[in-house]
Order: sequence, then C-alpha cells, then structure tokens
Amino acid sequence: MSTLATLSAGDETYVLRRATDADVARIVELLAADQLGATRESAAELQPYRQAFAAIDADPAQLLVVATTSGGEIVATMQLTFIPGLARRGALRAQIEAVRVHEQHRSHGLGREMCEWAIAEARRRGCALVQLTSDKQRSDAHRFYQRLGFAASHEGFKLHL
Amino acid sequence: MSTLATLSAGDETYVLRRATDADVARIVELLAADQLGATRESAAELQPYRQAFAAIDADPAQLLVVATTSGGEIVATMQLTFIPGLARRGALRAQIEAVRVHEQHRSHGLGREMCEWAIAEARRRGCALVQLTSDKQRSDAHRFYQRLGFAASHEGFKLHL
Repeated sequence: MSTLATLSAGDETYVLRRATDADVARIVELLAADQLGATRESAAELQPYRQAFAAIDADPAQLLVVATTSGGEIVATMQLTFIPGLARRGALRAQIEAVRVHEQHRSHGLGREMCEWAIAEARRRGCALVQLTSDKQRSDAHRFYQRLGFAASHEGFKLHL
Repeated sequence: MSTLATLSAGDETYVLRRATDADVARIVELLAADQLGATRESAAELQPYRQAFAAIDADPAQLLVVATTSGGEIVATMQLTFIPGLARRGALRAQIEAVRVHEQHRSHGLGREMCEWAIAEARRRGCALVQLTSDKQRSDAHRFYQRLGFAASHEGFKLHL
C-alpha cells in the first residue's frame, strides 16, 4: 500500500493511498451510494469496473485514490487526471473527478482535506490549473468548492453517447 | 501527415489531421487570437508550448488536431483527451479542450464539423460520455454546444495555481 498522505478530520485520522484492484468493489459502493450515482451504477456486476480500473492504473496521467480509516475501511475516493495542453503557455492542468465521501464520514472536513491534498499534488506536478465539474443539482458541493478557492467560471457541458 | 477526416463547411474542404511539432507556432497564434486567450498566451516564446506539445504527442490518451484548408493553411484546432474512470459503470469519457477556429473561417460550420467528428471519434473509442467546459463569457459558444446536443448540466470550477 503506497501511502500518499495522512489526513486529520474531526477526531479521525485517515490514510490517503493509491487505490488497488482489491478496492474496486468498495469504491463502486461509494459511487452507487451517491444521490445521483444510484441510478448510474451497478455494483452487482464488477467486471466493467475492474477493466476500467486496469486502464486507470496503467495510465501515469491518472491517480485514483482512497481514504481509509485507521482500521483500514475505505470511506472516500477521488480521481485525479493530469492533462497536458498548449493553452495558457503550455499549462499542465489537474482535473478532479468522482469525489465521494461515505455519509458517515461527511461534514467534518475529510473532503476538504482530500481536495487540499489534490491541489497540493497538482502544484507538486507543476500544474497551472486545477479544474472539475459538478452537477448543477449539487448545490452543497458548489459551496464546498468555492470555499476551497475554486471559481464557477465555466459552464460544464455533457453529451451522453 | 496522418489525415483523420475530410470536412466540408461552406464552400471549403478542410483536412483534419493530427498536429505535429511544426504546427505549434500556428496553433499558439490561434489560441492567442481568441478574445480570452489574448492575455493568456505569449507567442513570442514558443519553448513552453513545444515542451507541452511533446507531452501531448507522447500520451496516447491525447489527440491534438488541426484543420487545414486545401492549400495546407492551419485554420482551426482542438484537443481531445480520453479519460478512463470507474463512475457510470467504468465509462471512458472524451473531453474536448481548446477548440479554436480562425475568425475568417467561422460561422459556416467548420467548428460544428470538427465537434461532430470528435463525437464520432469518441464513439469509435467506446466512450460513454463527451464533456467540455466553456467560459461563462462565451455565450455564443454555449448555444453552439447546445445545438450539438450537449446539456449544460454542470458547473465548471477552475482554480489557478
């Protein structure tokens, strides 16, 4: 297990580490427990998720992480993607996707600690920008990201194929 | 030159192809000519752009394209990024960034042809979703993406480092 950071939130200490194939089922549970994820995910059939995990894990531009309690239980996840581009003088950008915190571990700062770690990691890798999109239905999340310093400067467009 | 597609827009026929290092200066001109890009780009110093190009070109998840006239002049560009993820049953997503069309080649459908090609390419690669963000100041662009079938379902957050 490659520990990336130790995070303190509320009375708990969490370990942030790179996800492994053995974590996939639990990460899918976190995705499915979400208000919008409930209809999108299907934890009964793990094979497509495990294939996707293999692609994520093989790609050095991807970093899928989990946060665990001191007892080793996975209670949160997020994915970072590092995207090279020409715009903004050849800026590397970090993109955050799929941030999920188990409801029993919300509202005492774990999500904030994880995102602050992600921002620091983006700095370490030389990124000029961190970006993410958040469904317009998630108004609590929007306040959360604004408190972290993000500006809601863009419209986020999605097209389902 | 690896031609990806031939696009017809207005009376012109354009060739869509993968960008090469020799195209970097012209792509930067297109980025800098943009209303928002004018303050962000610095075409006088190409080195950071060429380094970024090398990173893009080496990464199989990135596809930087240019559209040229029949005479070979580069008049448009866009970048596609293919991002594996666990959410939505392990969906691969395509992200479109840095779409720019030279002002003399706008408003007769070249941008639409390029984006439709991008959507088709995303389908060919098995993506479940195409996504992009667009600055809230670009209201014309928003109507353009909505006509292409995109929904403005998300807030796009950015944090400059």
